[in-house]
Amino acid sequence: MFDIEPIGTVHTPIETSREAPSQGLKDEIEGTIEIDPAYEQALQGIEAGDEIVVVWFADEADRSLLELDKVPGRGVFNSRSPARPNPIVITPCTVTEVSGTEIGVRGVDMIDGSPVLDLKSTLHRDLNQA
Amino acid sequence: MFDIEPIGTVHTPIETSREAPSQGLKDEIEGTIEIDPAYEQALQGIEAGDEIVVVWFADEADRSLLELDKVPGRGVFNSRSPARPNPIVITPCTVTEVSGTEIGVRGVDMIDGSPVLDLKSTLHRDLNQA
Repeated sequence: MFDIEPIGTVHTPIETSREAPSQGLKDEIEGTIEIDPAYEQALQGIEAGDEIVVVWFADEADRSLLELDKVPGRGVFNSRSPARPNPIVITPCTVTEVSGTEIGVRGVDMIDGSPVLDLKSTLHRDLNQA
Repeated sequence: MFDIEPIGTVHTPIETSREAPSQGLKDEIEGTIEIDPAYEQALQGIEAGDEIVVVWFADEADRSLLELDKVPGRGVFNSRSPARPNPIVITPCTVTEVSGTEIGVRGVDMIDGSPVLDLKSTLHRDLNQA
């Protein structure tokens, strides 16, 4: 097991996994990431307008599922579904505001209160890849 | 702490972090991901030519670093560096071959033997995001 602790929490208007938007619909949903103040220095340079990758943990996901419920024969590793053995999810978002260790973002699909594991800059080099 | 266990291991020609290629140079480096046979069903549908995202753990990374060594004033959350509090790294790769639970990939930047936490399909919807 790895020693992985949350670096923060994300607040969104999504209360249950049934309300989680599909990829095409999430673009306009706004949320706030509260980063642990101990990590403020790690946020340096992030500003409104930036595209970032939010790495979070879907703690309500079904970790026993190996095949998509809705698409039998398609493996979970061949999908973006949160349901997978290690439900680590990566969601690209647009930063709308940075205020200390609170980051406003647009494009969220996390359930309210989900633990955040990491933030990264997006990979701009090859636009075909994510 | 989260209950996260590796789903496999990646084999690459990169032996130390000093040899790890920068983003622009990694494209042609090949490696093999060995997935735990317990998860074979989760691989269904992945085939040569696919672009996938490999989520792995940089267990040799400096987890205390909050600012880039080489770019003072730039926070690690505003970067793709493996050095960060939770060194979960996402590397887009191209599948070259699938043989049972062994997946050949091109575009690796992991140190040989790194634990793999997850595989995902790439996000093709918005090519500006990763």
